Order: sequence, then structure tokens, then C-alpha cells
Amino acid sequence: MKILIDAMGGDNAPLCVLQGAAQAAAEFGQGMDLVLLGDEAALKACAAQNHIDLAPFTIVPCSEVVDMHDDPVKAARHKPDSSLVKGLTMLKNGEGDAFVSAGSTGALHVGTSLIVRTLKGVKRPALATPMPGAKQNFLLLDCGANAECRPEMLNAFGTMGSVYAQKVMGRAQPQVALVNNGAEDTKGTPIYREAHQLLKANPCIRFAGNIEPRYIMDGDIDVVVCDGFVGNVVLKLTEGVAKTLLGMLKGVFLKNLVTKLCYLGVKGGLGELKRMMDSEEVGGAPLLGAAKPVIKAHGSSKAKGIKNAIRQAKTCVQNDLCGTMQTALNALQTPAQG
Amino acid sequence: MKILIDAMGGDNAPLCVLQGAAQAAAEFGQGMDLVLLGDEAALKACAAQNHIDLAPFTIVPCSEVVDMHDDPVKAARHKPDSSLVKGLTMLKNGEGDAFVSAGSTGALHVGTSLIVRTLKGVKRPALATPMPGAKQNFLLLDCGANAECRPEMLNAFGTMGSVYAQKVMGRAQPQVALVNNGAEDTKGTPIYREAHQLLKANPCIRFAGNIEPRYIMDGDIDVVVCDGFVGNVVLKLTEGVAKTLLGMLKGVFLKNLVTKLCYLGVKGGLGELKRMMDSEEVGGAPLLGAAKPVIKAHGSSKAKGIKNAIRQAKTCVQNDLCGTMQTALNALQTPAQG
Repeated sequence: MKILIDAMGGDNAPLCVLQGAAQAAAEFGQGMDLVLLGDEAALKACAAQNHIDLAPFTIVPCSEVVDMHDDPVKAARHKPDSSLVKGLTMLKNGEGDAFVSAGSTGALHVGTSLIVRTLKGVKRPALATPMPGAKQNFLLLDCGANAECRPEMLNAFGTMGSVYAQKVMGRAQPQVALVNNGAEDTKGTPIYREAHQLLKANPCIRFAGNIEPRYIMDGDIDVVVCDGFVGNVVLKLTEGVAKTLLGMLKGVFLKNLVTKLCYLGVKGGLGELKRMMDSEEVGGAPLLGAAKPVIKAHGSSKAKGIKNAIRQAKTCVQNDLCGTMQTALNALQTPAQG
Repeated sequence: MKILIDAMGGDNAPLCVLQGAAQAAAEFGQGMDLVLLGDEAALKACAAQNHIDLAPFTIVPCSEVVDMHDDPVKAARHKPDSSLVKGLTMLKNGEGDAFVSAGSTGALHVGTSLIVRTLKGVKRPALATPMPGAKQNFLLLDCGANAECRPEMLNAFGTMGSVYAQKVMGRAQPQVALVNNGAEDTKGTPIYREAHQLLKANPCIRFAGNIEPRYIMDGDIDVVVCDGFVGNVVLKLTEGVAKTLLGMLKGVFLKNLVTKLCYLGVKGGLGELKRMMDSEEVGGAPLLGAAKPVIKAHGSSKAKGIKNAIRQAKTCVQNDLCGTMQTALNALQTPAQG
């Protein structure tokens, strides 16, 4: 198995990418071919400076870099020798089995659509983010790749998310729900009402009905479906509220000597709480619906985030995620015989 | 000033409504006429049982009740002698200056549109909820009354929210922002892009541009504008995430004797944090755009929530909220002279 890694993507590249890739190689890299794409001289210098052994890796030199200010479409079209575009091109050409990048979400999304292409029945891939829930993690899609979605797209998200939950998250019978402002199937906009009916009739999933935003974080549902505008709100607002509350909690403990001592007593438990809300732990966001596995690691990924994204890519390939997904999508496309 | 109060609305009616109204009468009711609408016998029995003095109140007897299972339109049309519909009718007829209810949001919204009617230029009122922010409270609208909104509606929400922030929340120069999945004015759906342009050109407000969901809870913005579908997600998800995190925090403190002792040390600070997230504290949600002040108290309001909603109603009347809002909306309607 060959995993392609964008060594220049993300806020902490290339150092954290190299560190994460080295950890992946050590922990679960046996029998895997890990390919680093990037500025060869920069990678070698960074590795030497930080005592990272490059022996487990193949380096594919790239002369360009896609940065956060690049227009996604222009970057995908006009930076063929960037680590991001070259990686996607190699994936397309069969010179790799999966691609991992912490680079620009927009460029990765557009590049995946244009270069790797999508499964039959999928117009544009959805960004699916694993999120922390009280009971267990859940998958949220779309998280912002497609601001507007037709009902059929939301239905396909249900199918794709369900397959991912089974094949990569290890959920035997994943439950799928649609974000909506009420439990009744008459709730929401016309698009959500129609999507509800399609999901209800979808033979490939276990549809649990609408999920009200108040209950999303409970983690009772495995796959939470919504359009990219709403998904972005759910993803980022959760981060924002958690950050604000944990920040205020810090203030409570910093008040005086007594509260500081109290902090020591509950430090372990608070650490667990913080870890639960840590995007590094839950892993990267797959671009579901792409013809081959593409994993978007968080832009601010440290080594652990990169390592976990590489692990996700490995699981996708091992379990033939894209093949299984295509079969499920085909079932969706074929009208039932009367 | 005469405030009409739906004594039968909400999960804890009539007891908590009577308690809240009694507190309002004692704290800031001087010179005010507080009118309780409901089943007279039930109100009197409840008051007697709980030692609540009904002397400060006028009771308007009602023979019907709108409950949470009633269809909003049917309830508004066919239950004229319910406390909710009778209150709105009295408001419409000038037999009161404002109406407060913790009853069905749907029925109150539809009833307000049909009976009290809206200001000129407003098709349907928006539900505006004061929300807790790290820096200070902010107003979120629409919170679910209008799942789909045209750009002009979102623009009117900006105007109405800004007037409310000035007149009732005491913000001298309120900042208005539009929820969106990026700071750039090219972000979001076509409706949000057009709304952004309208808000930018709106002479009645200080428009701060788009606000990303991650920053909503910071409280740097006074008025946060979005459609009712997204607003419901923001409102309810914030509640859900806060509830989940505070619940997990409780688990951390309950772990053993040491952590329980630590809890005692930070109890005060944690109480403040909890109070901040308490919807009772921040008050009810005005139906902005109604021709006269209508305040929706949270369905689960206890006495404090009802008292604070009555206080809001008083401030709305004192500061001629609806008159000021109509003037601002008129300015929006008049095309600029070339």
C-alpha cells in the first residue's frame, strides 16, 4: 500500500508532517510505502535539524506550494508541480492508494473533484469531519465543501457517511440522522423536508430521522447529515463554545491559591475533557465521494493529527472504502423495480 | 403602562408565571398595570396554595388553553378565548401595551402575525434571542421563526436587531454581523452573499461584516443575523454543547473524595459560569417586527425568567421600541435619491 503525503500543507509544515509521518512509520507503517511530496531540500534540511530519519520514506520533489491565499480553482489548474496537485495527480494515475494533506481545504476539494474525480452518482465530494460526542465520536457531513445542497446530495451524504462509519470507524450498524429544527418530518426548509423523505426510503442506511441541534453532541447518532453551510456552523460553533467555556473554566481555577490547589486535584479529569474536544485526537476529514481516498488533516495539525490522518488513509485503503461506497451509491441510483 | 401576561403558557404555568409576575410587581411594578390572562379559578387556587398575593394584578378570565400539541395556525384562528390569543387580541385593540408569554412559540409567532400584525416592511416577525457571550450578551435573530429568509428579510433583521440592542439592551452603537462560513463577502450561499451587500449598504446599522461561527460566542458583536434554520442550530447547539461539557465537568468533580473537596473550592466560580449559560438570566425573546411588543419567555421558564421577560416588555414600551423600529425600517424602504 502506498500513501501519498503532502509534506508542505498546513500551518506547521513541513516539521509536523515529517514528525507525524515518522510516528506513523514507526507505529503502523510496516509493509506500507509512505511518500512525502514537497521541496526536497527543505524536507531534508528540516529532517536533519530535527533528527528525523527519512529512511522509511520516498521523497517526490515538488517545486511549487499551494498556500491559503491561493484561489482554489487557479491553484488546482495552474500549480501542477505543487505538493497538493502532484499528490492528487499521482493518486489519479495509480501511483498511490490514498492522499493525505493538511493544506488548503478549498484547493484540496476542487483539486480532488477536477483531478481524482468522484464516484458515479456524486457531483462534488463532501467534507466529513469526525466530531467528539458525549457517548462516542460521530461523523458530520458536509462540513463546508458544498454550501448549498439538493435533497439528493443530502441523501448521498447519508449513504457515504454510513459506509465510512462502517468501514473506517468500525460501527457495525451506523445510525444516520438529518440535522433539523424539530423531530417531525414536516420540519425545516423544503429541501430538508424532501431530503428527509429520501433518507427515509434509502435502503442502504439506518435512518433515525431528524436530529435537533441540542442533541447532536450527545453522540447517540453515528452519522449526522446537513448541507455545508449548516455543517460549518455545527463544526465551528462547537469548537467556539467549547473553547470559550474551557477558557472561562481556566479563569475559575486561576482565581486564587485555593482554586489553584483545586486545579491540581482535578487536573487529570480536566485533561481528559480537553483531549476529548481536541481535533487532533479524532483525526482528519475524509473527502467522501472522491474516486480514491483523500484525507484532509486539520490545517493546524501537529504530529499526532498527521499520524492519525495517515492511519485513517490506511484503513480506507485496507477496507476498500471507495469500492464499497460505489456499490452503495449504485443501489441508490437504481430505481426500485415495480 | 399595561403589560398583558399569559398565565397559562409554559411548562411551569401557572405557578411560575404567578411567582414571576409577583416578583416583577414587587421589584419594578410601581405605576404598572399587570394583567394576568388565564383560568380564573385555577389562578386563584394556585395563588392561595402558594401564598401569592393577587392584589397587584387584574385577572382577565380565559376559558381555553393553547398547548404545545396544537397546530399554530389552528390555535391562533380557533381558540379566541385562550390566554394566548386573547392576550394578543387585547394588545391589538389597545387594551394593553405589551404581551408576555412562555407558551407555544409557533402559536405565538403565527398569532402575532395574524392578530397584532407587523410593522410596515416586515412580512413575518423574527424571533430574537439574547444569548450569553464571553464578553457580553448578544442578540441572535432569527432563532427559528422563519426557516427560509430572503436577503431583504436578513437585512431587515439587522435593522430591527440594532434598534432593539439600542433601546432595550442599552448598547449605544450596536455592531451587527451576518453569520457566514468565512469572513470574505464572497462566502456563503447566494442568499447570504446578497444579504451581505444589503447589510453593507444599510444606513441604519453599523455592519461589521460576516461573523464565523467560531467567534459568535466571543460576544464582540451585539446583533448576530441569520435565517431561522441556522439560528435554531446556533441557539440549540450552544445550549447542547454547554450542557454536555458542564455535565462532563460534573463527572470530573464526582470522581473521588479529593475531587469532591476540590469542587468546594471552585464552587463559586463554577456557579457564575453556570449562571452565564442560564437562559433564565438573559431573558425572553422578543418577536421583532411585530406592530407592538411581544416577548416570548423560554418554555421552561421559572419565576426569574418570567420576571425578566416582564422587565423586557416594560423597557420596550418605555423606549417606544416599535415606533423607533418603524422609523428605521422606513429609512430602509425609501430608495436613496440620486
